[in-house]
Amino acid sequence: MLNDNTILEGGKFDVRGEFERSRQQTVDLIQGFTPEDCQAQSMEDASPAKWHLAHTTWFYEMMILKPFEEGFKAWNDEYAVLFNSYYNGIGDKHPRAKRGLITRPTLAEVLDWRKNINERIVTLYEKKSHPQLSWLIQLGINHEQQHQELLLTDMHHLLSQNSLLSMRVAEAKGDTGKAKTFEWVEGNAGSYQFGVMEDGFHFDNEAPNHAVFLQPHMMGNRLVTNREWLQFIEDGGYQDFRWWLDEGWTWLQATRVAQPLYWDRLEQGVFARFTINGLRTLELDVPVANVSYFEADAFSRWASSNIPEYQGARLPTEFEWEAFAQTHQLTVDDLFGHVWQWTSSSYAPYPGYRPWGGVAGEYNGKFMVNQMVLRGSSAYTPRGHSRVTYRNFFPTHARWQLSGLRLARDSH
Amino acid sequence: MLNDNTILEGGKFDVRGEFERSRQQTVDLIQGFTPEDCQAQSMEDASPAKWHLAHTTWFYEMMILKPFEEGFKAWNDEYAVLFNSYYNGIGDKHPRAKRGLITRPTLAEVLDWRKNINERIVTLYEKKSHPQLSWLIQLGINHEQQHQELLLTDMHHLLSQNSLLSMRVAEAKGDTGKAKTFEWVEGNAGSYQFGVMEDGFHFDNEAPNHAVFLQPHMMGNRLVTNREWLQFIEDGGYQDFRWWLDEGWTWLQATRVAQPLYWDRLEQGVFARFTINGLRTLELDVPVANVSYFEADAFSRWASSNIPEYQGARLPTEFEWEAFAQTHQLTVDDLFGHVWQWTSSSYAPYPGYRPWGGVAGEYNGKFMVNQMVLRGSSAYTPRGHSRVTYRNFFPTHARWQLSGLRLARDSH
Amino acid sequence: MLNDNTILEGGKFDVRGEFERSRQQTVDLIQGFTPEDCQAQSMEDASPAKWHLAHTTWFYEMMILKPFEEGFKAWNDEYAVLFNSYYNGIGDKHPRAKRGLITRPTLAEVLDWRKNINERIVTLYEKKSHPQLSWLIQLGINHEQQHQELLLTDMHHLLSQNSLLSMRVAEAKGDTGKAKTFEWVEGNAGSYQFGVMEDGFHFDNEAPNHAVFLQPHMMGNRLVTNREWLQFIEDGGYQDFRWWLDEGWTWLQATRVAQPLYWDRLEQGVFARFTINGLRTLELDVPVANVSYFEADAFSRWASSNIPEYQGARLPTEFEWEAFAQTHQLTVDDLFGHVWQWTSSSYAPYPGYRPWGGVAGEYNGKFMVNQMVLRGSSAYTPRGHSRVTYRNFFPTHARWQLSGLRLARDSH
Amino acid sequence: MLNDNTILEGGKFDVRGEFERSRQQTVDLIQGFTPEDCQAQSMEDASPAKWHLAHTTWFYEMMILKPFEEGFKAWNDEYAVLFNSYYNGIGDKHPRAKRGLITRPTLAEVLDWRKNINERIVTLYEKKSHPQLSWLIQLGINHEQQHQELLLTDMHHLLSQNSLLSMRVAEAKGDTGKAKTFEWVEGNAGSYQFGVMEDGFHFDNEAPNHAVFLQPHMMGNRLVTNREWLQFIEDGGYQDFRWWLDEGWTWLQATRVAQPLYWDRLEQGVFARFTINGLRTLELDVPVANVSYFEADAFSRWASSNIPEYQGARLPTEFEWEAFAQTHQLTVDDLFGHVWQWTSSSYAPYPGYRPWGGVAGEYNGKFMVNQMVLRGSSAYTPRGHSRVTYRNFFPTHARWQLSGLRLARDSH
Repeated sequence: MLNDNTILEGGKFDVRGEFERSRQQTVDLIQGFTPEDCQAQSMEDASPAKWHLAHTTWFYEMMILKPFEEGFKAWNDEYAVLFNSYYNGIGDKHPRAKRGLITRPTLAEVLDWRKNINERIVTLYEKKSHPQLSWLIQLGINHEQQHQELLLTDMHHLLSQNSLLSMRVAEAKGDTGKAKTFEWVEGNAGSYQFGVMEDGFHFDNEAPNHAVFLQPHMMGNRLVTNREWLQFIEDGGYQDFRWWLDEGWTWLQATRVAQPLYWDRLEQGVFARFTINGLRTLELDVPVANVSYFEADAFSRWASSNIPEYQGARLPTEFEWEAFAQTHQLTVDDLFGHVWQWTSSSYAPYPGYRPWGGVAGEYNGKFMVNQMVLRGSSAYTPRGHSRVTYRNFFPTHARWQLSGLRLARDSH
Repeated sequence: MLNDNTILEGGKFDVRGEFERSRQQTVDLIQGFTPEDCQAQSMEDASPAKWHLAHTTWFYEMMILKPFEEGFKAWNDEYAVLFNSYYNGIGDKHPRAKRGLITRPTLAEVLDWRKNINERIVTLYEKKSHPQLSWLIQLGINHEQQHQELLLTDMHHLLSQNSLLSMRVAEAKGDTGKAKTFEWVEGNAGSYQFGVMEDGFHFDNEAPNHAVFLQPHMMGNRLVTNREWLQFIEDGGYQDFRWWLDEGWTWLQATRVAQPLYWDRLEQGVFARFTINGLRTLELDVPVANVSYFEADAFSRWASSNIPEYQGARLPTEFEWEAFAQTHQLTVDDLFGHVWQWTSSSYAPYPGYRPWGGVAGEYNGKFMVNQMVLRGSSAYTPRGHSRVTYRNFFPTHARWQLSGLRLARDSH
Repeated sequence: MLNDNTILEGGKFDVRGEFERSRQQTVDLIQGFTPEDCQAQSMEDASPAKWHLAHTTWFYEMMILKPFEEGFKAWNDEYAVLFNSYYNGIGDKHPRAKRGLITRPTLAEVLDWRKNINERIVTLYEKKSHPQLSWLIQLGINHEQQHQELLLTDMHHLLSQNSLLSMRVAEAKGDTGKAKTFEWVEGNAGSYQFGVMEDGFHFDNEAPNHAVFLQPHMMGNRLVTNREWLQFIEDGGYQDFRWWLDEGWTWLQATRVAQPLYWDRLEQGVFARFTINGLRTLELDVPVANVSYFEADAFSRWASSNIPEYQGARLPTEFEWEAFAQTHQLTVDDLFGHVWQWTSSSYAPYPGYRPWGGVAGEYNGKFMVNQMVLRGSSAYTPRGHSRVTYRNFFPTHARWQLSGLRLARDSH
Repeated sequence: MLNDNTILEGGKFDVRGEFERSRQQTVDLIQGFTPEDCQAQSMEDASPAKWHLAHTTWFYEMMILKPFEEGFKAWNDEYAVLFNSYYNGIGDKHPRAKRGLITRPTLAEVLDWRKNINERIVTLYEKKSHPQLSWLIQLGINHEQQHQELLLTDMHHLLSQNSLLSMRVAEAKGDTGKAKTFEWVEGNAGSYQFGVMEDGFHFDNEAPNHAVFLQPHMMGNRLVTNREWLQFIEDGGYQDFRWWLDEGWTWLQATRVAQPLYWDRLEQGVFARFTINGLRTLELDVPVANVSYFEADAFSRWASSNIPEYQGARLPTEFEWEAFAQTHQLTVDDLFGHVWQWTSSSYAPYPGYRPWGGVAGEYNGKFMVNQMVLRGSSAYTPRGHSRVTYRNFFPTHARWQLSGLRLARDSH
């Protein structure tokens, strides 16, 4: 899959069409799920599908209709509190850990609300009453796309918590073929420019464009696979402190993690994996997913010492990744659409970074601490939401996202 | 309300009729609630309504159909795990704190399962194939009645967690009249017999009948009211260590409790109360509810020192309560049906206590530690489930039940 | 050892002599320990030896010198806060969990303070200026005796936390002989009087004397031994839910307890025990010690089902124990001085109980919830501090005291 | 204070002299403290002074004597476990949170051990038996210097936990004069080299020397003062979410932090500060100390919006700091010796970083995650331990170190 950043094509971007498609897309995602499935919250990090449907609607109501619609009246005043995620600037919030307790409004009522807001946004947009509207709707679309991915990761996690669904193993879907032969590809060294340059939509954290000096290095031509991860497990990788960051080792002792999330040991050396469609035999030649930064980092250290061709392996920096993606989009086919790829870069502001003004200023900047950057995109990322400058970020212990890794190494 | 123990009337008891009525009664309780309402679990102590509907069905399937039905085949094998509450003897359990994550089966599927089990129980019963069946079905009815009360207390708690429902205060329903004038009533002293004597259904913890020696004492002729509790609050009762057990004081500091559960301070000295129908102005002349043992005990100590007529007030023992109820059923009208009444008795086995045999042996005995006995019954207790020997029990910090208090004192 | 209640002998009691002896006794206990040993606090439940030395001094200063000494001036004003244990009536307290951080005053300074207070108490007492003084000093002596026992249990626990001391096993001291053959002894049934009758010193929780009706029952003629406990372990007793209270089973899963505190598994079926003098081979024929209520209760249930002679075994009530001790003091030699004996009685006020007046009112009453009564006394209890009416109490999970058990059963 | 990196002067460095001086220096630090003071551990992050004395000795015994001394025999085998800090490669460890429970060996015994090891190290060194010895002893000296600083920060924290020492406020020592007038100083932009270049001793995390591209920026000519911090407090800075990172805001709600550690509000707007010598009136014109990264970051955001001259203020990156220190050592006198200065740089390996070989490999690398870099040095840093390339690091909530801040901003 190529970098499908059609959304960035400035004036040619069909705002109304993309708005309606993305709004419908979220509703499509819950086909096959019941009101009960859409109600439950499996852990504090995750949110109910109903909440995602509501919050993305709240975002349009608060960020666009409230400031720009003449004679604005909220669909329901209390929803402003119920479906606020983290915008302190907008007011009170329902506690994050208790999103699964919002049984009212029902799913059907949330869908009604969605329709109402959709119509009002289109009406407002057609009037072209304010120059910022087009950008704000693009922000709303991108915001909703992020929640589409979260809706899937959160539903995946929820289903995994139901003992009933994890009692029987089915065969995985069919032949995925052998993984590509591993090769090191020369990266670009020296001073390069990074971050967004075009005029199209991008998040504030992708700017400003700026120079970074890269040391000579090599990049892996493909992602690390389940087969390779299995070797790590079988070699006792989860039991050997030498591969682990100190905080990762502590995390391992506390959580007793010994395999990627959703892996289920059936017998010695044989695993199943819980997918969003149920428990399946493990496909060995696909990219490993649902590993934390701690695990990705430990794997690279282990691989460097134990697999001859991986000698010197480490995680790439986000700039090494971006330079690689810029120059290899046409030859490397797993940059996007499989798993997010952990980098060794802490999530930090680019030099000269300015958060957006107004309440949107809380969108990204306030999370820039104690998180690591992931690059690329995953099988759950909606089409049109990937680009080479895109910066995803999660804490070092998070593993309920489709997160995997690509290796890098210094070159000599 | 009198002690309505018609269920105890031995041979005359209409097993099939009571079975069908009690099964229908649980389904009736969720009228007006949505699948979403029935899905959510508001805290570890509480369970989703759907879980109560399922677990009471599981009980009949595991305790009666499985051992007695010829050619028994489970409706769904996995349900044995999903809907086990605490019977280690029956096998694995879905974790208690994660009952809200069982989104499948849906509510509709659980109701289908209920119908199937109902029919099979009636068929089995009509065959009269085993002498124990009548008793087991009575156990099943009593078990379901307990869960009917829990379904209401848990739904009450769940709704209270939804910010939307607690934003507007409505007037309470109308005039409840003044509370009865308080009077001390002489209790019976000396050696009395306690616990069940009749042949009808009773729980194992109500037996054996045995002698206890009572000191001379007096009992309050009515329950403590919201008006009295308000005095306690206004006098700084929640801020004065003198009234509190040491563990209660620690609990108070940790939880910052300063009023009964569901009370909401509107302004100085004016409270609303969250009811299962929403937020209402506080009715002052009704019994206080949703207080913990710590609070009930502290109130009695405060009242003894601060209200002249309550001098010497304390909580009654469960035997003082039972003797009082035996002798005053016709003259005191708030023994049952308003709030459970905390006693100063730890929940302990009666001398010579024997738990039931088989898996039902886990029903009561294993909980006999670190809990206090409550007597009477509440507005949420189903008709037919109250009796003077009934022993309810909860830990000293629990307050999501309709729990209040009646005072006692030594007499000299 | 007989019930050595010489302290109760009213007028003949040598107040000054006993005061001086008990004050010296505490100082004697720390011989062989360093200032460092006396400084550290191994857990929140335990206190440093230095704190015990200081707090018992604080007690005399606050309870006797402050109200009765003319021109009273505190040795150091800040000590009133530093060494208050739990008397809210006296004022602020240093946090309990941080007693090990009170490095100043030093041990030497605390010993100086002790001398000063000792002299002033004797001076005050010799003046006979107040009739309550004699009683208050007896209270002080009894209070200090309780802390003498705690000083030893706490030091024992502290030393067990030092990896250095638990690296080498020494032989236990010598032959303890075989345990006495087990026999059931008939208990007394019917209505008996319990609690203190004499005029001598006793705690408020031992009064008032009152009648309790006892069912027919039998008592074990000796305490449960390590050899018997080993059988329980070897039979998988810690892994079988059937023997455990529900809360005990939860505690077991959370703590991974699988043997008495201080036992150290050397190899399959062979244990050492950490004593206050270091790690020793386990003596099989002495009473088991350092077990929680949960464990004692589980053992009795297991023994009832697995050891023919123990059929029907359970823990005695505190009244069964007291009646047994009253009538068998001369024939049963392990009632006192070995291990405290868990009873099945919750720690509750006797009928008509009145806490002492003034600040001493916080001594006992406020702890009467969620604890179980232990009777007898232990090897760490100072001489002169045991009596048949004495009520010790601890929460159901506590096990750092020398706590064991004697079995009882119903008789038919 | 200039960058006093005399230790780096290669061949001229007096290894034996520096060794003996640094060993004596640690013992000198505990003059005036008692064995009790040296025993206690005030929190898991801190260690007892006795432990620091022992661990620095353990380091020499394990890292130098064990591999290089002929016929090596440990002073005490158990010490290898007791005084291991975090070297998994060396074997078991006594749990970090329980270092205050190691009452044996005593302080005196630890001092004896120190003497023995000192003599053996000198003997070994004089034989010049191995080329690596000189470097290893320099490592030991640097390691001990780090623990000298920790010994002081940890003792400071311990004393602050003793209610007795914080009851009386004394006057601060005297006139510190007005703080220097604030000015922005132009930083150097473009590509520069960072990290160690010389041959002298340095930690592995300071290498390799490498190029980083710096954007145009300005640096503050002095550190932020208590007077400025007081303005932040008085303006409600701790109560306004706008200044805080999301994780910082959560930390603030959980901990109720509202002022730097060791500040004690005497009355509105008047503070004392607990120093290692006791409670003192707050000196307004000295650098603020004991603030976390979250606080430093929030202050800079607040200052940027509220203090005209600080418009655009932010924390510097570690490279901005290093470039500033290289070029302004002679003109800016608070780079070293006052407080460590938080930077906005995550603690990460430099490109091409290689941890040291052997067990020393655990020294730095495994901590490179979820921590921020601090530059400079503090009043507690021993002489000879500062240099412009030195990288200190702590988690974002840590505040018991002498940590403050210097502001930076982009230049336009």
